[in-house]
Amino acid sequence: MPDAFENFSVVLVATRNPLNLGAAARAMSNFGFAHLRVVNPYELAFREARSAVGAATLLASAEEYHNVGDAVADCTLVVGTTAVHHRELHHPLRRLEYGARLIRKELASYGGRIALLFGSEKVGLSNDDLSHCHWLMRIPTCEEHDSMNLGQAVAICLYELVRDAKAARSSEKSQRATAGELQRITAVLLEALHASGYVKASAAAATEEKLRRLVRRLNLSAPDAEVLLGMLRQILWKVRQ
Amino acid sequence: MPDAFENFSVVLVATRNPLNLGAAARAMSNFGFAHLRVVNPYELAFREARSAVGAATLLASAEEYHNVGDAVADCTLVVGTTAVHHRELHHPLRRLEYGARLIRKELASYGGRIALLFGSEKVGLSNDDLSHCHWLMRIPTCEEHDSMNLGQAVAICLYELVRDAKAARSSEKSQRATAGELQRITAVLLEALHASGYVKASAAAATEEKLRRLVRRLNLSAPDAEVLLGMLRQILWKVRQ
Repeated sequence: MPDAFENFSVVLVATRNPLNLGAAARAMSNFGFAHLRVVNPYELAFREARSAVGAATLLASAEEYHNVGDAVADCTLVVGTTAVHHRELHHPLRRLEYGARLIRKELASYGGRIALLFGSEKVGLSNDDLSHCHWLMRIPTCEEHDSMNLGQAVAICLYELVRDAKAARSSEKSQRATAGELQRITAVLLEALHASGYVKASAAAATEEKLRRLVRRLNLSAPDAEVLLGMLRQILWKVRQ
Repeated sequence: MPDAFENFSVVLVATRNPLNLGAAARAMSNFGFAHLRVVNPYELAFREARSAVGAATLLASAEEYHNVGDAVADCTLVVGTTAVHHRELHHPLRRLEYGARLIRKELASYGGRIALLFGSEKVGLSNDDLSHCHWLMRIPTCEEHDSMNLGQAVAICLYELVRDAKAARSSEKSQRATAGELQRITAVLLEALHASGYVKASAAAATEEKLRRLVRRLNLSAPDAEVLLGMLRQILWKVRQ
């Protein structure tokens, strides 16, 4: 797990559906988060989820609490999640993109533990739960369909936390074909076109230029150029017979 | 739905679990995507998902195909998703952050339709499915736990597509308390401290400065400052009696 998130806990409050507990735990594993706390889960759901395949380790080490206050007592920053756009909120409400950035900053600057709270499937976090939060975060969903599935909401929040802004600008490292390789392809293809009567003598120069531009637009990788050249040579051999 | 994604289709290939079909459709609704195509879903799963609450409209209008070729025939860009990190791939493999950027760019520049493919829960996209793709995209999961739940994978990819990079830098718009309000709080609190014998005459100036700094660090909003001032005035009234 990225050391950066050693001091970060996901807190699921009053979760009802074992599938959602399992899905939340799986997303945590996917993105390298280890610390799960559960507040008053439906007992049966929690037991079922614990016995499900895949998420065993993380759910087995989940810490159980009877109220939100106890679950976040050792945390220096408590962030709640909500699907709400306009409800009268008594907290600053931040979009996930910005809120996640603040959480990363806090983790990098201070040693304190951070809790990210998710409410129950039906009603989300109660006003009492929210009163333990420093601020709230919302995933930028459409207003008409703002309520997300719990497992998906957890996955998206964790993804945003580990998301690498630099990767969004990363350029390709795959090796492109060289101009020489492209020219060999052009030449073989042109010869095949000549041999098969495609090229009119009066337009030979124009056709060659057109072909050269087309081959450059193919945006070929080095290995692909080699394969294509082999194919065209074979075709040219056949055409010449 | 954002017009930008009118030419964008999610294509689910050989999905087995009705819950995943439903979850994918729900995430599409959450983020404003309307076009779902399904290739050879398990018949029963598809029927069950269609009758589930919530995702009805989107699933009812889903188009069904018998192979990937037909499902993407009208698309100018076909992108596959994979959890694989190192497998020998015959395609360029891009991280989601970068791939989503390319997709947005393509949607903004050309009129063509774009398909984003997700494989079955068990095996993902087959080599035959992949051969229809121009390139592949992977969600940046941990190597040890790289396989994501299908519904969560769809949700994260769509979130990344609609994610607003500008929002990550957005500053707060909530109204902060003015210096005048903070000074009134400081004054009332100081008076209460004087009245209750907290302030030593020899350190009065130092105490006032300390208090002024502390009040500024509280980072109060305008409404909170008003509430706090009311509380302190009440306390001061009591202290004076």
